[in-house]
Amino acid sequence: MPTLLFASGIDDPAPWQAAFAKHRPDVRFRVWPDVGDPEEITHALIWRIEEGALRKLPNVKAIFALGAGIDQIIRDATFPRDVPLFRLVDAGLREQMTEYALYGVLHWHRQMGQYARQQAAGEWRMLEAVHPSHRRIGVMGLGVFGMDIARTLAAMGYDVAGWSRTPKTLDGVEGFAGPDGLEAFLGRSEILINVLPLTDETRGILSGRLFASLPGGGALIHLGRGGHLVEADLLAALEGKQLDWAMLDVFPTEPLPADSPLWAHPRVFVTPHVAAQPVSDAATSVVLDNFNRFERGEEPSGRVNIAAGY
Amino acid sequence: MPTLLFASGIDDPAPWQAAFAKHRPDVRFRVWPDVGDPEEITHALIWRIEEGALRKLPNVKAIFALGAGIDQIIRDATFPRDVPLFRLVDAGLREQMTEYALYGVLHWHRQMGQYARQQAAGEWRMLEAVHPSHRRIGVMGLGVFGMDIARTLAAMGYDVAGWSRTPKTLDGVEGFAGPDGLEAFLGRSEILINVLPLTDETRGILSGRLFASLPGGGALIHLGRGGHLVEADLLAALEGKQLDWAMLDVFPTEPLPADSPLWAHPRVFVTPHVAAQPVSDAATSVVLDNFNRFERGEEPSGRVNIAAGY
Repeated sequence: MPTLLFASGIDDPAPWQAAFAKHRPDVRFRVWPDVGDPEEITHALIWRIEEGALRKLPNVKAIFALGAGIDQIIRDATFPRDVPLFRLVDAGLREQMTEYALYGVLHWHRQMGQYARQQAAGEWRMLEAVHPSHRRIGVMGLGVFGMDIARTLAAMGYDVAGWSRTPKTLDGVEGFAGPDGLEAFLGRSEILINVLPLTDETRGILSGRLFASLPGGGALIHLGRGGHLVEADLLAALEGKQLDWAMLDVFPTEPLPADSPLWAHPRVFVTPHVAAQPVSDAATSVVLDNFNRFERGEEPSGRVNIAAGY
Repeated sequence: MPTLLFASGIDDPAPWQAAFAKHRPDVRFRVWPDVGDPEEITHALIWRIEEGALRKLPNVKAIFALGAGIDQIIRDATFPRDVPLFRLVDAGLREQMTEYALYGVLHWHRQMGQYARQQAAGEWRMLEAVHPSHRRIGVMGLGVFGMDIARTLAAMGYDVAGWSRTPKTLDGVEGFAGPDGLEAFLGRSEILINVLPLTDETRGILSGRLFASLPGGGALIHLGRGGHLVEADLLAALEGKQLDWAMLDVFPTEPLPADSPLWAHPRVFVTPHVAAQPVSDAATSVVLDNFNRFERGEEPSGRVNIAAGY
């Protein structure tokens, strides 16, 4: 009898349990920590789970993630690397990521922060406008999210470049790849948008060295993973005006600690990891579809390349 | 010898003079109030001009506006209605209007104001997300600007309706038209975006009666014309929570008077008439092109229907 273990640490199990009860009443649904007999567990649906816990499920055949980022799952040294892992893609996550990035671009490009300060001061003053074609934006990471963000911004007339580990071609987007392409990419990125996956190579990539390569006075929109960001280096870059503004959705430690200087920084917008929130209807239908596909021997969406780390 | 009179009240004549000097050195360029011999003026390029001044130019053949809104020009009772008037369209104005509307939609839809307040309070809390397909947006006015805004939002997955004086059909956008269609349109518009022209019929349309027809608790994005808005009615609608938030770019009196309660209202974002600013390169090339087309007997873009008022 197929038996699914749900373990999140954040997500409410109720809508997931209801969706399986409705569409797959034959599947037993267990919620961590009530695992029951570990030998009975055939599938897992997880976001964060206690280190080593997956290793203790000898008969698990497939693991489905409750989100798109999976580094917190595979950094567990005991993760069963022979079991296929599927990230949650689509389910409205891509559209939400693009909306978030677009909001950050429009906020800075259209000087909305300055207009809000002028309003607070009762000041009526038009600022010089910049044509989108003169606004140079760099998208770091060209997976499902980065591709959609880059394409959307290019279609809106911005001057967009993309950077990825391996070369990728996107119409209307200047391509850079690998360590050799990074400097040139950064040097043209007035607005830098980070949607890289977190791997050994990208951990701490948002560092003083990277900020120093930017043209200066620009903006950072960070909706990748918390481990990308070196918080002290970001604060120094803002202090030295190497960066004018940052919009941050993910942090090395979440929730962002109460004593972080980012909370009160006048040129930082902190959001609590909400750039993409699985909206339950769409998310449950994607997971159910993946569950069924896997059972029928078809390829589910979002298969993770565990060796590459994403 | 073709002679152009420039009169704005806001715009710097220098880039316009330079553009004509470069591309049409045969055209004499005069800047208000230095009209010279009024009989010599053959063309006018204007934004605001003293009432009656155009009537005193007996040989003017064409009038080009420095922006898209022209109500301030044709409300002059002495306006020479037999002389063709061309609004400035394109020139990046459409893209800017769409950017502004999109920013307002994303700000409210993604609850960015609430996240900013949470940041100020040091509070880490995810808010419930709404799928774009469940967010109902109404675009009032389906001219060049409204069509682009409605199409862009529909392509991003929002549930979009449009309202116009005469019926218009847009793929993916529910159409409403005329006085009979207004109530039903308003009743479904959680976010109302106004880009109507200002005419006798639309003056004061953003009134208590209109706000009362909205579903309640929604948002207004107003980037039409100042004369649409009844400021006291808007304040009452915000007070009574009939509206949750308003983003306003245009006002009955501009600059917005220092004693307006809108400046300090916590649920109002005031911008100083910057939704669309002619970016000089693009704007001068559109006007020059129109100037040349008119001389060659071809139809310039943006011909105003003076009887209809837009």
